[in-house]
Amino acid sequence: MSKDTGTRSRRRRPARGDRVVGQIAQRPWKQIHYPGRPVEILSADQIEKIHDTALVMLEEVGMKVLADEARRLFRSAGFDVDDGEEHVRFDRNLVTELVAKAPSSFSLRARNPARNVDVGDGAAIFASVGGPAYCMDLDGGRRNGTYRETCDFLKLVQSLNILHQEGGGGFEAIDLPPETRHLDLYHAQITYLDKNWQPWGIGHGQARDALEMAAIMLGTTVEGLGETPVFTCVINTNSPLQLDIPMAEGLITMSTHGQAVIVTPFTLSGAMSPVTLAGALAQQHAEAMAAIALTQIVRPGAPVLYGGFTSNVDMRTGAPAFGTPEYVQAAQVSGQLARKLGLPFRSSNVTAANTNDAQAAYESQMALWGAMTGQVNLLMHAAGWLGGGLTASFEKLIIDAEMLQMMAAYFEPFAVNDDTLALDAIREVGPAGHFFGAAHTMERYEQAFYTPLLSNWDNFDTWVERGQVNAETRANQIWKQLLQEYEQPPLDEGINDALLDYVARRKREMLGRDTG
Amino acid sequence: MSKDTGTRSRRRRPARGDRVVGQIAQRPWKQIHYPGRPVEILSADQIEKIHDTALVMLEEVGMKVLADEARRLFRSAGFDVDDGEEHVRFDRNLVTELVAKAPSSFSLRARNPARNVDVGDGAAIFASVGGPAYCMDLDGGRRNGTYRETCDFLKLVQSLNILHQEGGGGFEAIDLPPETRHLDLYHAQITYLDKNWQPWGIGHGQARDALEMAAIMLGTTVEGLGETPVFTCVINTNSPLQLDIPMAEGLITMSTHGQAVIVTPFTLSGAMSPVTLAGALAQQHAEAMAAIALTQIVRPGAPVLYGGFTSNVDMRTGAPAFGTPEYVQAAQVSGQLARKLGLPFRSSNVTAANTNDAQAAYESQMALWGAMTGQVNLLMHAAGWLGGGLTASFEKLIIDAEMLQMMAAYFEPFAVNDDTLALDAIREVGPAGHFFGAAHTMERYEQAFYTPLLSNWDNFDTWVERGQVNAETRANQIWKQLLQEYEQPPLDEGINDALLDYVARRKREMLGRDTG
Repeated sequence: MSKDTGTRSRRRRPARGDRVVGQIAQRPWKQIHYPGRPVEILSADQIEKIHDTALVMLEEVGMKVLADEARRLFRSAGFDVDDGEEHVRFDRNLVTELVAKAPSSFSLRARNPARNVDVGDGAAIFASVGGPAYCMDLDGGRRNGTYRETCDFLKLVQSLNILHQEGGGGFEAIDLPPETRHLDLYHAQITYLDKNWQPWGIGHGQARDALEMAAIMLGTTVEGLGETPVFTCVINTNSPLQLDIPMAEGLITMSTHGQAVIVTPFTLSGAMSPVTLAGALAQQHAEAMAAIALTQIVRPGAPVLYGGFTSNVDMRTGAPAFGTPEYVQAAQVSGQLARKLGLPFRSSNVTAANTNDAQAAYESQMALWGAMTGQVNLLMHAAGWLGGGLTASFEKLIIDAEMLQMMAAYFEPFAVNDDTLALDAIREVGPAGHFFGAAHTMERYEQAFYTPLLSNWDNFDTWVERGQVNAETRANQIWKQLLQEYEQPPLDEGINDALLDYVARRKREMLGRDTG
Repeated sequence: MSKDTGTRSRRRRPARGDRVVGQIAQRPWKQIHYPGRPVEILSADQIEKIHDTALVMLEEVGMKVLADEARRLFRSAGFDVDDGEEHVRFDRNLVTELVAKAPSSFSLRARNPARNVDVGDGAAIFASVGGPAYCMDLDGGRRNGTYRETCDFLKLVQSLNILHQEGGGGFEAIDLPPETRHLDLYHAQITYLDKNWQPWGIGHGQARDALEMAAIMLGTTVEGLGETPVFTCVINTNSPLQLDIPMAEGLITMSTHGQAVIVTPFTLSGAMSPVTLAGALAQQHAEAMAAIALTQIVRPGAPVLYGGFTSNVDMRTGAPAFGTPEYVQAAQVSGQLARKLGLPFRSSNVTAANTNDAQAAYESQMALWGAMTGQVNLLMHAAGWLGGGLTASFEKLIIDAEMLQMMAAYFEPFAVNDDTLALDAIREVGPAGHFFGAAHTMERYEQAFYTPLLSNWDNFDTWVERGQVNAETRANQIWKQLLQEYEQPPLDEGINDALLDYVARRKREMLGRDTG
């Protein structure tokens, strides 16, 4: 004799599903606004202790800073610089004064003003995966991606309302020359999307090209971009305690023009950071403060985000692990450290799984809950990340979009009033009745509950009749349908011509030939 | 040019994995103790409003109570009973006085005293799935289960340290006669496990047999069981606002003998409850208070749990949905409502998915996070539930065990001290070094991080070389290995003989024949 839902569900086994085919349900485009408080697992004293340890690291151990230009800037601000050792030591008062100049929130412009986003201030942005080397789908498996596939990926990012920002190109277009690949990507990001997008900031060149093309996109000048930023750009420190030349250049160019740098130390506990989480987070905090200070030397008040990426490695193999219990704790504490500095907080939706199985989902969910309960302001790699970030998966993009939509629905305020308490409906139905036909139900059922993008709620027999399709295969069907239904957001022809001219000119300069 | 983990992970691609084969890593057996505060999405006023609405329902609408015996008890306590209508109305003061008699926490005895568990008081218990009609594994698919398969399932529940309690038999053993099936199950629960286990409480007979056999197991009398309870037993109200005869009988028999009833209204919003969550939860609260009051009429101070099972249905098909955003909100609010009454809180780990794909994992994760942030005290169906509770899956049992272990590790206190802040390790390694060989690392690396039961962290190439095994298939390998390594906990022969005699005698009585 079974109990709980066992019997009950069988008694109430639903009628044959009648899901509408050829129509993909989505929530409208809308940023997340946190209704409540973040989960804070550490006390104010514990946060203070981590913060103080980070300042001791910066004073005593300091950082290697490989770019002369960056060391000059640090010296000009009064820091203790050793050019022979390419090394900087950081006075704690000076560094905290500089960090304090950064704003706690700001806005980002998109090509479509209706897609402008707020950074910080109790709001969250979901950005698609950026940076992987490989692309992957159920049909072709993991492989080197092409420019055409990159464009398809961007079309899907545009089509998914739950993604508020494009996160940096999905994956590498290996069929394009590496020197100029970023130019084709920027053009695709501008033309296939009307959402805000992320550029690459590895070196002055990539950053400068992004600024020039964004200025054309918005009909303004590179200087004009400074008024309201258009970019958030990831800058990783080379943990432990090092800032390399391309990253320093990207930071300097972006901050100079008032664009938002996402300072993200790459602190894998046990490898590039201490094997204890508190130590890894203290190191993350130290590297973050040093790089954030640099942004404020370059341009006081320049927007900047505090990036938390601390995770751990498998000590038996050295493989990075993601979505672990340690990752969740690190994400929540990183949120506390960002708020300690009064800065917007960036985290990520990550997994080490190599395929879209249960592990990919539960590791991503762990990362998501860590980030969201820590009240992340910019969730990077929110959709599409697989295999420790080496792969962008078309199916994972859809699976993540479903998980993000569910998160967004969870964070909707919970209404308690006479209407929702439904006392009259209870009076109408009474004991042992059912509510399917009640007036209260009929008036509300269409909008009452979250409608899934991907999840299948058919009972077992119906699910079998319909081919026992699992989530990964449904995701494959959904992204193909979205691609079919994609509509390119209109762009002024003059602007597009100017962009094409710019790309062609830069390619001539860089490749020394006309690529047509 | 990729950024963030893209480049970094490639540079740091780990050496060939060298995972130990033939040895399954598990955390030691240990209850969860919540270090922090629960997530409470409603204000005290909002909770008060739901509580008050529930009391109005009980006073104005009341409940159908089908068992004469139960109505007699309600009348004896001073409630307004109509035997013709089989109906009871509940005075708000009387019902709240009775509910207040129930203890806020208590302990449960197990055959092995080292496996006794605490209910309430900031602690959590994970119980295996109980009640499904079907069993399922990767080899045989979904099917009617046999007694042998039930015993295999119980052996796995015993083997998994993260499961603190057996939750009621896994699935139906269809090859046994239904009238006496519970007797064979109880014998298997006692002999294959030394953990606490859940009986069936559908009617006096099942409950009485459970008490008799538990008394034999513990070398005491049925009366003696009352001192420290041995059972938590699920009693569902038949929502809306009805208590049927078998459930009332189970409640009365268990409470009479001081055993803990888990009062669990089956409030599916849109079907057996209002289409608005606040209304569904008010109804859940009303039904819970009525049944909890009955336990306190039967035996003042009898242990009882507040069960929250509110979810929603798919309004297009009537199919129940689980692990939805609404489910998460309902679980957290149910925790608040249980604490409002000063009672331990029961929730569940549930999904509507019909196979162990990404959906099964993300819906279960949503349910888990709702329950755990709501500080559930007894998490039922914590491992093995699939297909809306109609199926117990051997692979899901392992996938859930991994997710539960990760939760347990996440709730471990986060240590911030000079040892974990690792300033000396930072000084030792310095900028641009690595921590693999550092003394601080060498002293701690073996115990530093969570070790997975199921998750695979191999890099892609290693994963491919090893056959691209996904999580469901690994789970299949793991439960088979656990079954192979299973060791039966010793049981006094005299006790086992007495149990066998009891089972044989009851079968003769019930089937009118000797089944040997």
